[in-house]
Amino acid sequence: MLLERGVTDAELQAEANRIAVKVESIFSSYLAGSGDGRDRLFEAMRHAGLGGGKRLRPLLTVATGRLFGIAEDRVIRAGAAIEAIHVYSLIHDDLPCMDDDDLRRGKPTVHRAFDESTAVLAGDCFHDLAFEIIADTATHEDPFVRAELVLEMARASGPNGMAGGQMLDLVAEGQVLDMGSITRLQQLKTGALIEFAVEAACIMGRLPPEARTPYRGFARDIGLAFQIADDLLDHAGDEAVAGKRLRKDAHAGKATFVSLLGEDRARQQCSILIGQAIEHLEHHGEEADLLRAVARYVEERDR
Amino acid sequence: MLLERGVTDAELQAEANRIAVKVESIFSSYLAGSGDGRDRLFEAMRHAGLGGGKRLRPLLTVATGRLFGIAEDRVIRAGAAIEAIHVYSLIHDDLPCMDDDDLRRGKPTVHRAFDESTAVLAGDCFHDLAFEIIADTATHEDPFVRAELVLEMARASGPNGMAGGQMLDLVAEGQVLDMGSITRLQQLKTGALIEFAVEAACIMGRLPPEARTPYRGFARDIGLAFQIADDLLDHAGDEAVAGKRLRKDAHAGKATFVSLLGEDRARQQCSILIGQAIEHLEHHGEEADLLRAVARYVEERDR
Repeated sequence: MLLERGVTDAELQAEANRIAVKVESIFSSYLAGSGDGRDRLFEAMRHAGLGGGKRLRPLLTVATGRLFGIAEDRVIRAGAAIEAIHVYSLIHDDLPCMDDDDLRRGKPTVHRAFDESTAVLAGDCFHDLAFEIIADTATHEDPFVRAELVLEMARASGPNGMAGGQMLDLVAEGQVLDMGSITRLQQLKTGALIEFAVEAACIMGRLPPEARTPYRGFARDIGLAFQIADDLLDHAGDEAVAGKRLRKDAHAGKATFVSLLGEDRARQQCSILIGQAIEHLEHHGEEADLLRAVARYVEERDR
Repeated sequence: MLLERGVTDAELQAEANRIAVKVESIFSSYLAGSGDGRDRLFEAMRHAGLGGGKRLRPLLTVATGRLFGIAEDRVIRAGAAIEAIHVYSLIHDDLPCMDDDDLRRGKPTVHRAFDESTAVLAGDCFHDLAFEIIADTATHEDPFVRAELVLEMARASGPNGMAGGQMLDLVAEGQVLDMGSITRLQQLKTGALIEFAVEAACIMGRLPPEARTPYRGFARDIGLAFQIADDLLDHAGDEAVAGKRLRKDAHAGKATFVSLLGEDRARQQCSILIGQAIEHLEHHGEEADLLRAVARYVEERDR
């Protein structure tokens, strides 16, 4: 059993903060502004991309990179690219024609702080930024690695990944989903990008596909646990702490893991998945402590 | 002078049709559907991406590739990726919060044929598809080339390229633009991607940056001529032939090359730019005939 806490809550928080600062510094370096009419676009991108967010995905990438001894300055760029995909998806998911949200990370959503057309473009530009960051020669990454990262990121983000999950979510409105359907939906909508956050580090660590199995297993468990925790938060969390509107799913009559399993069993299931995730790392020693701590954080988070 | 017609109109049309078929076949191979709720998304993508469009950008890429003897099956994939970026941008530009268009390529726009949220997602997915096509190992392209293509495509598409131009266009509404501002706007909005369509072939032909100068000059001239021709079409074209709503700019009180220069001088300017573009190819022989024919087509097109 590897459940002893090799990384304390305070240490995890410090690591997460440090990584968040690095991600924002990478974003900032691309968002200086232009001195013309596009300044409004850059401002909207800074509004969405800076000063908030858990940065869970880059944290996962960095923590996984530590398993293979990858220098943090290398792996953080892939993490920032993945976070850019996440930021783009939040901007578009918040749009009036999608989830129509007013609040995100404690601030007005982009289309509320600016306007809808600026929000569409700011999302589109974060989408490009993700690929620019990952393909940038500033990474000093082997071109083969850069090309593979791009390919897998495009797949994790598109119709067979995150965007496909969002589509399933849209067509599910007013339908009653069973556990199988909702698991599949969430594996695409949030799982695919979380899985890629782990896989990206495997690619950078030059693991052949067959050696990636335990890390994929870890990522799949974490991704599902993350979504159950999200549903629990939506069900019972504090809007002021979460920094976004909650109880949306109940209002929309949508099935969630909590509505299907009940709060107690959902909590149990989340816990089981985290334990299972950590077991995938059993052949690792203390180099996996940060990743184990991230896994436990997924279960315990309150925002 | 290289103005003799090495490629006839009929031959150009046949080449353009052949390339359009190949581009659609590449798109189709990624859009087979999923047998679940995402089928609506794939259907929207097929609606937007198949059965229409001039495919000018892939035609430019293939014609430029011919200068360097690049096999068409290699260069067509980069062309298809660029066309995917173009398709994504059309879907989003047509949205109610952007240009609010009902007709595109003679068919209802995606948000009219489906709905707004599906249109946002279909655009996002074409955006991913572009990067997937260009990074796909199916290209058998050197990873270094794939990574450089991704990087330059992301730049041509984002806030310092196409999307930035769209932002300038949005903030320009109700303002009076001079020739300098409108040239800058169009260089980003339509020019950046057209330039990349040419540059992509230079990258695949392994031209060092300093050897790309004439082709960049060609692309810049063609890009601007294309926009002037577009303004002329918007001013005097036939909606039934164009397959989209015209006279939008006049209604919106927007400055265009035609409103600033008048129809005659705009036509002259377009012609001068095409001549200038073709001059950049003067050190080439008949391997540039297709590219010269494409340049002349830009001036003469009626849709």
